[in-house]
Amino acid sequence: MYIKELIKHLGEEKFSQNETILYRHGHDESPHPPVEPDIVCFPENREDVLLIVAVATKFQIPITPFGAGSGLEGQAIPINKGIVISFERMNKLIEFSPENLTITVQPGMTRLGLNKLINREGLFFPLDPGADASIGGMVATNASGTTAVRYGSMREQVLDLEIILMDGTIIHTGTHAKKSSSGYHLNGIFVGSEGTLGIITEITIRLHGIPEHTISARCTFSTPQLCVEAAQLILTTGIPVLRMELVDSVSIKRVNEYGEYEFPVADSIFLEFGGFQVAVEEEIALAKELLSDIGCLSWTIAKDSKERAELWKARHEVSHSFRHIKGMEALGSDVCVPISKLAELVKYTRAQVEESGLLAGILGHMGDGNFHSIIVFNPDNLKEKEAAIRINESLVYKAIELDGTCTGEHGVGLGKKKFQNAEHGTSVKIFKDLKRLFDPDNLLNPGKLFI
Amino acid sequence: MYIKELIKHLGEEKFSQNETILYRHGHDESPHPPVEPDIVCFPENREDVLLIVAVATKFQIPITPFGAGSGLEGQAIPINKGIVISFERMNKLIEFSPENLTITVQPGMTRLGLNKLINREGLFFPLDPGADASIGGMVATNASGTTAVRYGSMREQVLDLEIILMDGTIIHTGTHAKKSSSGYHLNGIFVGSEGTLGIITEITIRLHGIPEHTISARCTFSTPQLCVEAAQLILTTGIPVLRMELVDSVSIKRVNEYGEYEFPVADSIFLEFGGFQVAVEEEIALAKELLSDIGCLSWTIAKDSKERAELWKARHEVSHSFRHIKGMEALGSDVCVPISKLAELVKYTRAQVEESGLLAGILGHMGDGNFHSIIVFNPDNLKEKEAAIRINESLVYKAIELDGTCTGEHGVGLGKKKFQNAEHGTSVKIFKDLKRLFDPDNLLNPGKLFI
Repeated sequence: MYIKELIKHLGEEKFSQNETILYRHGHDESPHPPVEPDIVCFPENREDVLLIVAVATKFQIPITPFGAGSGLEGQAIPINKGIVISFERMNKLIEFSPENLTITVQPGMTRLGLNKLINREGLFFPLDPGADASIGGMVATNASGTTAVRYGSMREQVLDLEIILMDGTIIHTGTHAKKSSSGYHLNGIFVGSEGTLGIITEITIRLHGIPEHTISARCTFSTPQLCVEAAQLILTTGIPVLRMELVDSVSIKRVNEYGEYEFPVADSIFLEFGGFQVAVEEEIALAKELLSDIGCLSWTIAKDSKERAELWKARHEVSHSFRHIKGMEALGSDVCVPISKLAELVKYTRAQVEESGLLAGILGHMGDGNFHSIIVFNPDNLKEKEAAIRINESLVYKAIELDGTCTGEHGVGLGKKKFQNAEHGTSVKIFKDLKRLFDPDNLLNPGKLFI
Repeated sequence: MYIKELIKHLGEEKFSQNETILYRHGHDESPHPPVEPDIVCFPENREDVLLIVAVATKFQIPITPFGAGSGLEGQAIPINKGIVISFERMNKLIEFSPENLTITVQPGMTRLGLNKLINREGLFFPLDPGADASIGGMVATNASGTTAVRYGSMREQVLDLEIILMDGTIIHTGTHAKKSSSGYHLNGIFVGSEGTLGIITEITIRLHGIPEHTISARCTFSTPQLCVEAAQLILTTGIPVLRMELVDSVSIKRVNEYGEYEFPVADSIFLEFGGFQVAVEEEIALAKELLSDIGCLSWTIAKDSKERAELWKARHEVSHSFRHIKGMEALGSDVCVPISKLAELVKYTRAQVEESGLLAGILGHMGDGNFHSIIVFNPDNLKEKEAAIRINESLVYKAIELDGTCTGEHGVGLGKKKFQNAEHGTSVKIFKDLKRLFDPDNLLNPGKLFI
């Protein structure tokens, strides 16, 4: 019934019930079980989205927004079926303003597509989750990546969102000015709301100048905790690193095998410095001195752009190297704590993993206190599977105990729902009140974020 | 009746109805007419605040939070009388964590008090509104100052707030981790909410390392528009200035008289660079070259820390120099627009002021697209007063037309209420919904933010 009405309004070419299309929009990159939607819509502009929302409201059909499908917590899985809105065709540039270091795009544009548009102007959008995520998906999950230590996460990039609410109202959550003290700051709650409060149709974000000079380095320590101490020292000294990634010895060994690299198997930090050449040289010299004082075992600077590219390619492949072991599955944690608690949490993680006997790497964004442990298990072996889940859960509770969060950048989706009460306590009631305010019929991405 | 109950619960020593105390808590630094509260409470901890909230709810008495009283838009004026909560005694340190570059304080601590605590550790809290504002007041208005171009405004500093809601619930709006993708981000709406949604009882903010080396410079151009173009060039080139302030020729002339300075009377930029010495020197050389290419008339580097301190003392005195002219009053604008529109808005402002014949300086935070025009008028001359109000209003509408905001850092309070519909359109309904959700009886700082 509602499908007929959708087709009538949108036209045949803006929807699909093709089996392949339904399959593709029933899962993301998480291990959560897929659920196929009844129909996938491909709106091309805000008017199309308004029509879909009107039909969904009239017939009380759930809507799940879908970006690139690269999420890691099941946010894009339409667990109650109904309509998936794919933003594949809403991937256009609205306005590029290099003089303001800002750009306005539709949510379906991906981060690599965005960079392609702007790099020639000497600008870049530095946030780099592993996948070529859509900008809309990155807003919805408050994504970040290896450069958040310098540039912050998605929330710090968003100046304004155009949002379609379930009653058909179109609102703007911010302004195009760099700062504002006017009105309640709606960017705050919409960034990271995972499509549960409204549907994003336009996004205005900050851009950044490509650093004039960039140098990458790699150094090793005898334990991952020492890597963390090194990172803390660099931060408190005020060295403005571009990237500062932990890649533990287990991960180095694994990625060496997977990508035929020859990195020395040791707990490592992958570093990047960027800025004016003299500044970068000064920063590197200082970093090297600081780290050698606390027991750095080796310090290697990428000698050219090829070596630098290889270093970051390897870093981005670590996760895949664990996820693509034949016959095995992997569970990734995403905890984040105050830096001073990070060494303790990393030590705790190693102990848990060793006790379980499972293969697991630890890697992540030390400058933010955020790391991932990728725990590999045999899905047919119930004991292994349960151990992986148990480790993941115990890391979350430990992180919360240490004043941290269950998710630094992947979001809540389906996987982190059950930790919301432990982490947010009395605020969960406010979350539910907000959800009810914006989506009284519970049609927007239902079943996510809360139990 | 409710006063008796307050005294019974809080004790005699935590409230006052002394005439001087009532007077002091009836106004801020804005020109809005003062209104004295019925009683001023001086809570010392969250339990005291809970008691006050319970009594206010029971007797339906309005509550207005009061920090340092340095607001510029009437936020702290208890226009419906009732209870003022002064945070004078809630000014304690809760936890200082230099290793995390964070600190947790009660809302009554002032920014200078905070810096006194942390500067000895090599850290500072850079945001500097003119006055020695309370941290709570700065959170409530999303304040910033001259260093926002480098560090962002208050919203970017806040990691977590402890808030008491009107139903007595205590919530936390964030986490102590540097980033999080968990739950709806309540920091967003509470920062800048001007005490209308809940009462802040603890604040956790980021700190920053004091730059190793700092140099200030002053340069002049033939028009304020050229100053703005210069600022835009510096930003798009990626020079990470610490401060970049416009002080127009009218302001220079006025502050010279007020403070017995001898700055050349010309449209000027006051600049500050900070970081490692080699980097700072490189940045200054590059800035000088860039600016000389576009017509910089003079370029002077502060030769020692005394000259540097004098420069910034003068900058901070400009506003006072206009506000403290005998027999006159001053109205300050606070518009903020995308940088590319700033030159147009500054030109428009100058034209409006010249047409009116009033004395008015233009100064501000160019790197953010934010500036203030301080318009001086004789309060006994209705024509002058009306002209000042008219200019201020026309700047706001022009800023909104240019994709900007009516307030970059002072907040809405009483003065910017009437522009909310023009600026936020359909979002104003959401603001009102949120207000109703958190404060259904409209007791928290009523009469602010909305008409």
